[in-house]
Amino acid sequence: MNTAYAVDLLFESVKAKGPVCIGLDSEAEYVPQSERRKAESAAISVLHFNRAVIDATYDIAACYKVQIAPYEEMGIAGLSAYRDTLCHIRSKRSLIIADIKRGDIAETAKHYAKAHFSGDFDADFATLNPYMGMDTLAPWLKEAEAKGKGAFVLIRTSNPGMKDFECQKLANGKPLYYEIGDRLAELAMRNMGVMGYGIFGAVVGCTGKEEAAEIRERYKNLFFLIPGYGAQGGAAENAALLLREGNGGVVNASRSIITAWQKEEGAENADNSFAAEAARRAAVKMRDDILNALRK
Amino acid sequence: MNTAYAVDLLFESVKAKGPVCIGLDSEAEYVPQSERRKAESAAISVLHFNRAVIDATYDIAACYKVQIAPYEEMGIAGLSAYRDTLCHIRSKRSLIIADIKRGDIAETAKHYAKAHFSGDFDADFATLNPYMGMDTLAPWLKEAEAKGKGAFVLIRTSNPGMKDFECQKLANGKPLYYEIGDRLAELAMRNMGVMGYGIFGAVVGCTGKEEAAEIRERYKNLFFLIPGYGAQGGAAENAALLLREGNGGVVNASRSIITAWQKEEGAENADNSFAAEAARRAAVKMRDDILNALRK
Repeated sequence: MNTAYAVDLLFESVKAKGPVCIGLDSEAEYVPQSERRKAESAAISVLHFNRAVIDATYDIAACYKVQIAPYEEMGIAGLSAYRDTLCHIRSKRSLIIADIKRGDIAETAKHYAKAHFSGDFDADFATLNPYMGMDTLAPWLKEAEAKGKGAFVLIRTSNPGMKDFECQKLANGKPLYYEIGDRLAELAMRNMGVMGYGIFGAVVGCTGKEEAAEIRERYKNLFFLIPGYGAQGGAAENAALLLREGNGGVVNASRSIITAWQKEEGAENADNSFAAEAARRAAVKMRDDILNALRK
Repeated sequence: MNTAYAVDLLFESVKAKGPVCIGLDSEAEYVPQSERRKAESAAISVLHFNRAVIDATYDIAACYKVQIAPYEEMGIAGLSAYRDTLCHIRSKRSLIIADIKRGDIAETAKHYAKAHFSGDFDADFATLNPYMGMDTLAPWLKEAEAKGKGAFVLIRTSNPGMKDFECQKLANGKPLYYEIGDRLAELAMRNMGVMGYGIFGAVVGCTGKEEAAEIRERYKNLFFLIPGYGAQGGAAENAALLLREGNGGVVNASRSIITAWQKEEGAENADNSFAAEAARRAAVKMRDDILNALRK
């Protein structure tokens, strides 16, 4: 039995290291060429790259979000690199968000929950898509309770298409994402970690200021996974508004951190340690920007 | 360049073989014990089982739907069995629906589309979750156009939770699933196969009679993937209503076909060929039930 849920550990991690979540949406093109030439395969080059980035950042990252899609693209070799990347994050006692956005009927959800909360792809959190209904989340919740895990459920993302369905106004007056968020908030009251956050949180993209403040106010007990950092101006200020006293959320950045090395002087001769140090600087700058915005 | 899209091939397949889609949601527990004991691993036992079922049914199944979740649960070994199952289906010139329900922002969707329309996990169709918006479908459509592939987008499923969000009434008077379906119908008009169906179809679960007739009438140009067969009474009649002149959809059954052997006399001594023959009989019966319902 776990004494604490993943959301409690994440709360402690944010307190100790700040709210930056590093997204390892790594693909071969992000790896310095010298390293790509050395590695036996594209997938192995990505794994080595990830390990270097993790080694250089685990003391300043609240957690890592690993987007499974680029690994899936590389097939079995890629998913082996995904597995080994998770393993390396665990070896640093860091927390893993498996960004898999799964969502399926109950029987199938059981398989998915076991797939990502144990075995080769064991992670601390999974991202989930709620479209098919609350019964698709139930098996995940059961597994999460048994194993001290957590999840972030999509409510309001920051891609342009979020207007299409997520933000549709319902007959009851709410946008769809509030309908879903409200159900998650109910769930949080029944399934809460010791720090006052539900063991299932929500994915809430960086949005405009007013909306960010409104969402934070409405869902005090939901821990947020906040993607979309840097995609628009005022990122640190907006992200800060989605936090709650500097905690209650992690702000993800992927490419802006792991490809930071490409904009640095000497990039043409870069190796993984060069790239990893650049990633560290980018992550520290992002953390400080958000912490500064919180002080305002 | 492809002269036909996957949806055209599926249309031809339904015409020749009937509308039954066999769901290979296979897990080790579905495999006869004698075979499980022989195989080196659970994943390998599932692969051998799948091959036997495919060999016994490919001439009477319109296509196969392979639900990736139970394979993901077995980690890398499971996904290797998934890959090899797809390969075996292809070797029979049968069509594959990868039931993966992916849905993510554009950049990530590109990776997913490449993952499932080429390489290890190459399939003819993928199932997609539209919650995050139409821009999440665009990269799939681009890949599908280039490679002659297709997709089935979730609109109205048949699990109890579909009431939670899918069926929510919007301020514009439509249920959410019609809002999504209408966008797909628009897409179909611009991206149509030669048989008059959009290259992207929709997942529409077996529902009550009135609703089935209404959905079919509304979306004449959408090919349907129809799950939930047999979960309620009048399955064949309701499924028939979701077809259009006996085509325009495939009706999926998974467990009722691949575990049919467990209810047969002699099950305690079953091997894979016993199980495969039972699967064939169950699939033939299902096909005939639907064809009979169509004649009414």
